[in-house]
Amino acid sequence: MKKYKGYLIDLDGTVYRGNEVIPEAIPFVKQLAEKNIPYVFVTNNSTKSTREVAEKLNGLGILANHKQVVTSSMATAKYLQDQSVKTCYCIGQSGLKNPIKEYGIQLTDSTDADAVVVGLDKDITYDKLAKACIAIRKGAQFISTNRDHAIPTEDGMGPGNGAFTALIQTSTQQAPVFIGKPDTVIMKEALDVLGLRREDVVMVGDNYQTDIQSGIHAGVDTLFVSTGVTSTEELATFEEQPTYIIENLSEWTFE
Amino acid sequence: MKKYKGYLIDLDGTVYRGNEVIPEAIPFVKQLAEKNIPYVFVTNNSTKSTREVAEKLNGLGILANHKQVVTSSMATAKYLQDQSVKTCYCIGQSGLKNPIKEYGIQLTDSTDADAVVVGLDKDITYDKLAKACIAIRKGAQFISTNRDHAIPTEDGMGPGNGAFTALIQTSTQQAPVFIGKPDTVIMKEALDVLGLRREDVVMVGDNYQTDIQSGIHAGVDTLFVSTGVTSTEELATFEEQPTYIIENLSEWTFE
Repeated sequence: MKKYKGYLIDLDGTVYRGNEVIPEAIPFVKQLAEKNIPYVFVTNNSTKSTREVAEKLNGLGILANHKQVVTSSMATAKYLQDQSVKTCYCIGQSGLKNPIKEYGIQLTDSTDADAVVVGLDKDITYDKLAKACIAIRKGAQFISTNRDHAIPTEDGMGPGNGAFTALIQTSTQQAPVFIGKPDTVIMKEALDVLGLRREDVVMVGDNYQTDIQSGIHAGVDTLFVSTGVTSTEELATFEEQPTYIIENLSEWTFE
Repeated sequence: MKKYKGYLIDLDGTVYRGNEVIPEAIPFVKQLAEKNIPYVFVTNNSTKSTREVAEKLNGLGILANHKQVVTSSMATAKYLQDQSVKTCYCIGQSGLKNPIKEYGIQLTDSTDADAVVVGLDKDITYDKLAKACIAIRKGAQFISTNRDHAIPTEDGMGPGNGAFTALIQTSTQQAPVFIGKPDTVIMKEALDVLGLRREDVVMVGDNYQTDIQSGIHAGVDTLFVSTGVTSTEELATFEEQPTYIIENLSEWTFE
């Protein structure tokens, strides 16, 4: 087992399930803190701020401050800044719009925006979608927070942000840049926060399609835990396997 | 030039443009009527009833009664009946919902529906889309009126029904049955109305991607007119060509 200088850690299914902590995560994170091994939490959630995520973690007994949280919203805002985007038409909630504003990008209702950002918006309307399509046809960059195709609702699995992104892609025939896992923009951002190179860190997660794939795509080693979405049986069906497979985080040793 | 026993005729770009008649269409249709050659108009429009379409045509000087109009809504309703669908969850406007009811299918808000029908709905909401996804995941048949990916709006090209269908397909990972052109369900229905076989009719239209493709897919000869969407230059780039290519309908002779 390689000794890693830093850890990238998924949240839902790895550290908690909904509002309940996964018990083995508490001593795992505590050891990282005690050994002064840098770690950041990497989440596709685009509705919560990094402070809100850190508060939730602290409430569950997990050591974290807001600088140790990378959300797809924050990674999106940073990406817009890196691309020198000045104005942005954004579909999404305040958890996405606030970071974009904080990174100095002007939100606009104009279809002449430099970029269109698409995040989950349960108050979606035809006009919002049409505006996004028209701006992209006029040449705006097309950016999507993540490709999740379904999310839980009270009655069953409703469409996720990746489904709305597919709508706009089908209509405009333009492919977006995706920010969140399994894509690499969010991983690059998380490595920047750690200040480490990809070969020195490991990505920890429960979801093969997002967490493990994001590590594979970014050239980062991966540690799979079967406490969440992907079962060990399902995992075995994939050609490219994680670097390490464990039942839960109590099995991991740091030496 | 083959002598056809019947004609399938597109509307927008072939007979009219928006609210203006294409002048050459008037004598063309008049000759069909005088020669007692059966014809039906075949449109992907799912918002208007067959009576409304016939009224519009008459107002423009085109001879037509409502039995000579096949809309994607009517073809959808007929398809549901053929599939023995009893209950249907429908996204769409009254132009789609009314024919479905008239064909004896019960519209429901329940996700236990036998079928989900998706047509253009400018009052779309997250909840409507979620309900469609959930019903399809529970096993409902997934039917879409047409795959048009963009439609004109006041400010530019907004998403068409094919884009909303792609959203649901991406989220549920289930492929729909498409009714409208270039798919063949609407063509089968139009042939039934004419009471003729596919080798005895010709499909007349201006749009390569919908009209000409629908003929090709259904094994029906095609007559292209360059009075609408597809230019003669663009037409030349496609591998599979129409049976006949003319500038406008005045060039066509019936002997």
